[in-house]
Amino acid sequence: MNRGSVLVMATAMGVAISAALTVAAGGGESAPIFGIEVPSGFRDWRLISVAREEGKLDDVRAILGNDVAIKAFREGTLPFPDGTIIARLAWSYVPSEENNRAFGRAQSFVAGPPKNGVQFMVKDSRKYASTEGWGFAQFDGGMPADEAMHKTCFPCHEPAKARDFVFTHYAP
Amino acid sequence: MNRGSVLVMATAMGVAISAALTVAAGGGESAPIFGIEVPSGFRDWRLISVAREEGKLDDVRAILGNDVAIKAFREGTLPFPDGTIIARLAWSYVPSEENNRAFGRAQSFVAGPPKNGVQFMVKDSRKYASTEGWGFAQFDGGMPADEAMHKTCFPCHEPAKARDFVFTHYAP
Repeated sequence: MNRGSVLVMATAMGVAISAALTVAAGGGESAPIFGIEVPSGFRDWRLISVAREEGKLDDVRAILGNDVAIKAFREGTLPFPDGTIIARLAWSYVPSEENNRAFGRAQSFVAGPPKNGVQFMVKDSRKYASTEGWGFAQFDGGMPADEAMHKTCFPCHEPAKARDFVFTHYAP
Repeated sequence: MNRGSVLVMATAMGVAISAALTVAAGGGESAPIFGIEVPSGFRDWRLISVAREEGKLDDVRAILGNDVAIKAFREGTLPFPDGTIIARLAWSYVPSEENNRAFGRAQSFVAGPPKNGVQFMVKDSRKYASTEGWGFAQFDGGMPADEAMHKTCFPCHEPAKARDFVFTHYAP
């Protein structure tokens, strides 16, 4: 093995290790189109609301917001100010045998393993001027979804234009 | 009207105003048996998990925890340390016509008005020694539920003894 091939190999290993570390850290790679990275500490954000999607999604979900988002939701500020970030987490919809035994009937469904990725809406009226100020991102296991997926975000949110493209209402 | 009856009337009005203010503030009155008041700022606590109850409860719910609770859940600490408070919020389970239109099918259920009160579990191993260290409370519109209701809390949680009487698992 000559010096050149050792260098190539070392570089390739370095790239592989770096990629592995990025995945392990749950982020670092930015999503296509909008260039959004997983916001640090988002799992600690406050709760906006909860929901359940049947059908193909078949999940139970929580919508969290950073401080700017929570303030805007509580004060009814529209449009949402720059700096708003809204996170949508989702988990498998799993019947809880343990809860059902306590309630004495089959009625209880809880959050199982994470499902359908984590999605973010980021408000930056300059950067995302062509999508009404919103950037969108989805990550699955810390890795961004592909470009085709990200092209569907804004059109899907258009029906909520009257509430600045945000479907979720604050749950008091 | 003599001086005495004016005094009685003024006192009665004062009591009525005070009670109204207590309700408006969403707390102040402590729950029976365990003497728990609504913990200040609980709506800002971090998310433990979400769930859906069918049947008579028919709600969608979020379980939040104070800092002690979140740390214990994330680290798998059992029993939960003194100072742990877990909050269970619940809302009506409401189909979302707006979301359904965006998804193109009837599949979306969101949180409507608050329902089934707000419940708390408070860990204090000395104060609540007779119920394995847990105090329980339910408030409806800021007012504590009655004593009979509070007598049902601990027996209902007994099946979860192996996890220190807490049903909810942390949702990553």
